Amino acid sequence: MNTQIITIGNEILNGTTVNTNSAYISKKLSQIGIDVNHISVIPDTDKIIFSEFRKAFSKNDIIIVTGGLGPTHDDITKFTISKFFHSDLIINKSVLYDIKLFFKKRGRILTETNRKQALVPEITKVIRNPLGTAPGLWIEKDGKIFIAMPGVPHEMRFMIDNYVIKNLKKIVRNYKGYFKIKEYLTTGIPESNLYDKIISIINSFSTLEVAFLPNQFGVKIRIKFSANTKADGERMISSFEKKLFTQVGDFIYSTDEKRIEDVIGELLKKNKYTISTAESCTGGLLGHRLTNVSGSSSYYLGGVISYSNKNKMDILKVNKNSIKKYGAVSEQVAKEMALGLINKFKTDIGISLTGIMGPTGGTKQKPVGLVFIALYFKGDITIKEVLFGDNRILNKDRASQFALDLLRRKLLNLPI
Amino acid sequence: MNTQIITIGNEILNGTTVNTNSAYISKKLSQIGIDVNHISVIPDTDKIIFSEFRKAFSKNDIIIVTGGLGPTHDDITKFTISKFFHSDLIINKSVLYDIKLFFKKRGRILTETNRKQALVPEITKVIRNPLGTAPGLWIEKDGKIFIAMPGVPHEMRFMIDNYVIKNLKKIVRNYKGYFKIKEYLTTGIPESNLYDKIISIINSFSTLEVAFLPNQFGVKIRIKFSANTKADGERMISSFEKKLFTQVGDFIYSTDEKRIEDVIGELLKKNKYTISTAESCTGGLLGHRLTNVSGSSSYYLGGVISYSNKNKMDILKVNKNSIKKYGAVSEQVAKEMALGLINKFKTDIGISLTGIMGPTGGTKQKPVGLVFIALYFKGDITIKEVLFGDNRILNKDRASQFALDLLRRKLLNLPI
Repeated sequence: MNTQIITIGNEILNGTTVNTNSAYISKKLSQIGIDVNHISVIPDTDKIIFSEFRKAFSKNDIIIVTGGLGPTHDDITKFTISKFFHSDLIINKSVLYDIKLFFKKRGRILTETNRKQALVPEITKVIRNPLGTAPGLWIEKDGKIFIAMPGVPHEMRFMIDNYVIKNLKKIVRNYKGYFKIKEYLTTGIPESNLYDKIISIINSFSTLEVAFLPNQFGVKIRIKFSANTKADGERMISSFEKKLFTQVGDFIYSTDEKRIEDVIGELLKKNKYTISTAESCTGGLLGHRLTNVSGSSSYYLGGVISYSNKNKMDILKVNKNSIKKYGAVSEQVAKEMALGLINKFKTDIGISLTGIMGPTGGTKQKPVGLVFIALYFKGDITIKEVLFGDNRILNKDRASQFALDLLRRKLLNLPI
Repeated sequence: MNTQIITIGNEILNGTTVNTNSAYISKKLSQIGIDVNHISVIPDTDKIIFSEFRKAFSKNDIIIVTGGLGPTHDDITKFTISKFFHSDLIINKSVLYDIKLFFKKRGRILTETNRKQALVPEITKVIRNPLGTAPGLWIEKDGKIFIAMPGVPHEMRFMIDNYVIKNLKKIVRNYKGYFKIKEYLTTGIPESNLYDKIISIINSFSTLEVAFLPNQFGVKIRIKFSANTKADGERMISSFEKKLFTQVGDFIYSTDEKRIEDVIGELLKKNKYTISTAESCTGGLLGHRLTNVSGSSSYYLGGVISYSNKNKMDILKVNKNSIKKYGAVSEQVAKEMALGLINKFKTDIGISLTGIMGPTGGTKQKPVGLVFIALYFKGDITIKEVLFGDNRILNKDRASQFALDLLRRKLLNLPI
């Protein structure tokens, strides 16, 4: 199935908006076995849109268009589609009903401009839009499928999740053979080390398509497994994962796109542990990440952002002499922060961080990127010293990730 | 100048990576008056790359390629370029020198694979790469410019900023007339209200190209001003801005891409004020944002993440009866949190937040999205009640943004 995505929009062409829509669509399509061959971004100009439709239609089986459907005068996509398919625009009653409802719910008056949004090419099936006023369009012609959706991300995503993928699945159901895409999220190991450790496993399976995708939080391993039958495929996945987990299982925190803070949240809930945080260098990021999880108030009791030496002493009772003797960024201060934290919050677990995030403030002895992390866990304290890079924002991300992974390993009894 | 960007990479086509490279390039080009007409994403396949080069070269004056230059076997772009321009690959001495230096600095051994990266088509000028091993390529032929860069974002950005834009500028210097792109960052006013307030100003200038770009932090107004001469252009901008600022100036926190936390940091530094935070619902995000600014330790002394009622009472000395009588999410508790915070941190300014971020936990009286924000400023307390939406992550962003904007308005003596 040759597939192209066409994004219409000047805001993408001039760089004010990043094209996250096409990434979303591509990912969802790849999960049902449809590989995108080509993505193009074009301006809101009828001639160019028409010519791109013609090229795309001649080469592809599936064409997915986003953008250029909406209430304003720039949105000329629908008229171009009508012209391209030689199909007149008619008022669609379901769409008109949806639009009226949308306005009624919000207590707004329906204008003639809005009414016109119910106009769709006669040839089209509509994809209804409960989140906005522009419907999606689904056209089948000459054995090809042409889909157009508004560019507003949450409206487009709703249509993909609730209509487009379901209906495309029926068509690709006859896909020969079996395939599955899996993602293994790792942290705490550099890409090249991970590669060296598992390349022989990967090479021992002939049909894997593998990608290593690193960022400041870790490395994602994305694998497409293909086989002749479902049974073969599942056997291969099981055999592969057995080897993978034996080799690098400790570094894998998720196989189902969960964030590490979700994984930790589940472990804390299961064990009925409570946790608190004492942050200097991360400035609240660790608390922020822990509380991004819905329901986190059942285990996260709170924390202290001790950004000055004074409140390290006042609130966390860090010894003045320790700061003087070892410096605020030291193993000793990290330890005293964690103990002061536990004394205050009485939680089962406490994490403290102190470091130099940069880009300035480093010395030869204590360079930018140096962080001490202390983990208190039921009476024991583990302290780690780490050296990150010189980008402040990335360093905060990395330090919070390191702290969360340290906790994950502790909770799972993995080597630290 | 017709311009196309070609992104080569399967990771973009299957949605595992978002195409931020082309957004970066487009934005930088638009700032020097080069509008991108077309962006295409294609796979790492030599035939497809070759055919896309041919199409792009026939239609455009400038072609910019990213991706497909690197040490691995998938990176076939360079060979395709050599073929496309009928130009043999030769070892470039400067590039070889750079690669050797790169490896020496890192104490790594130079392999034959790495040495091969110094091979470039004879026709090309090289764009040197201090951050990696793959050079960029700059080719001029038939009055057209063809540029290829590696896909690693920080390497590509370095080349754009230090070589590509500078050299393209020389070529477009003869651009007829004057233009300037300006971005006005607003917060605290919905897109439609902003539009209504300034549409008549926009319409009174005939040559403006305007875009409204909303997200959870506010609305960015992007304007391209065009005029025959520089003097005309500057007069127009000045006249426009006078009207814009009279009408909606209070909502504009930046005209030079600064974050609101940077703007606040400058105001705090200038006035020598100190600040602390007491966060319940935002869980540390406000502290995190304040400390994303380098040098923030000179005014941000720290904070408390009071995620449980117990530590609202224990650390911030919130009255037990207030929580009982009014609930943890109330004006009274927000106020007591702020007072307790100031008592503890002795800062000039204190901000407290308490709310329900969702998606669950709301009641009819206190729905998901309800937040109370208290701002202590030298003896005075201002309290705001706000209702956001039902998405936890967006609500945290919005609440922290609201708090920062409240502070900005206080510091600038704007109406609150």
